[in-house]
Amino acid sequence: MAAIAGPEIERLIQLLARVPGLGPRSARRAALHLIRRRDELLAPLAGAMQVASERIVTCSVCGNIDTADPCTLCRDLRRDDSILVVVEGVADLWALERARVLNARYHVLGGVLSPLDGITPKDLAIAGLIDRVAAGAVKEVIIALNATVDGQTTAHYLTDMLAPTGVKVTRLAHGVPVGGELDYLDEGTLAAALRSRTAL
Amino acid sequence: MAAIAGPEIERLIQLLARVPGLGPRSARRAALHLIRRRDELLAPLAGAMQVASERIVTCSVCGNIDTADPCTLCRDLRRDDSILVVVEGVADLWALERARVLNARYHVLGGVLSPLDGITPKDLAIAGLIDRVAAGAVKEVIIALNATVDGQTTAHYLTDMLAPTGVKVTRLAHGVPVGGELDYLDEGTLAAALRSRTAL
Repeated sequence: MAAIAGPEIERLIQLLARVPGLGPRSARRAALHLIRRRDELLAPLAGAMQVASERIVTCSVCGNIDTADPCTLCRDLRRDDSILVVVEGVADLWALERARVLNARYHVLGGVLSPLDGITPKDLAIAGLIDRVAAGAVKEVIIALNATVDGQTTAHYLTDMLAPTGVKVTRLAHGVPVGGELDYLDEGTLAAALRSRTAL
Repeated sequence: MAAIAGPEIERLIQLLARVPGLGPRSARRAALHLIRRRDELLAPLAGAMQVASERIVTCSVCGNIDTADPCTLCRDLRRDDSILVVVEGVADLWALERARVLNARYHVLGGVLSPLDGITPKDLAIAGLIDRVAAGAVKEVIIALNATVDGQTTAHYLTDMLAPTGVKVTRLAHGVPVGGELDYLDEGTLAAALRSRTAL
């Protein structure tokens, strides 16, 4: 390829191919699309990436990403300090915010415990979580981790670690996803939905 | 979202969502991936896009894209001037080069005739093609357009337009794709493959 179109285009394609969701073939297609829309898309995207690369920092309080530290969420005075939501990553924080149900504070763990991958408590932001809860304002910790084995193991570990603080610890409900069809759900989810059934 | 993580991240996500192959959800995932890999991926990609945005030009001879005009292919003295391959777009040129069969010159039409989309001969690089062939060095024009109705209509139109020059005009063979299974092929392809059968 380098001999066809110059190393600059080849380099752009190679870097695009490393973006999740794009492979080598779609990276070529994306590169051509971007080059065709140079002024509306390629140049603005290059600029936005440059800004993100230079200015985005990890919040020292909660682990969210933002261009300010503490982040916008941690500085928001209208948020309820008494509820702290523990998430695995920033994507989960964003997902919960999209649900528009919570007006709480967050704590990003940066992963979940995983003996197979060598992820131990020291690799996660657990000490910071305990410190924040021990400071006293938090009345409830909502553990919003993925409903995977590693996520649930981590939830139990956090519950044990938080026990001395006396804080209330809750987790997300298991059940049928809204819009979900029973026929396509696994037995574990159906069993959980039955156990946690609510009165109509 | 702007209230969660600052407008810079939101803008990056919105621009990423316009890249073919990425939607709103995968753009968020891609943005987080890029921010996590800031030094290895985000900053280099921003730089490569900036370079592409500033330096890539369309070749005034063949319509290929490159950082030089005429492009690397048009300047390559080892290419055979007697064979000119007509393609719809740069992606097709790249695809043919990957086949490593040709050592010819190219001509990018920039589209195909499409009455429904209002694409007429004036919108395509047809005049330049006739000029290049009339200049005399070209002995064969290979029309390598998609085997779609519009592609084949365009091929017939080009054949008519090139007739006065007396150049030999050929098109790609129709047939069974290498590795393809007959059971999954349409009748048109099978009929074409039968008509063009070759002796073993």
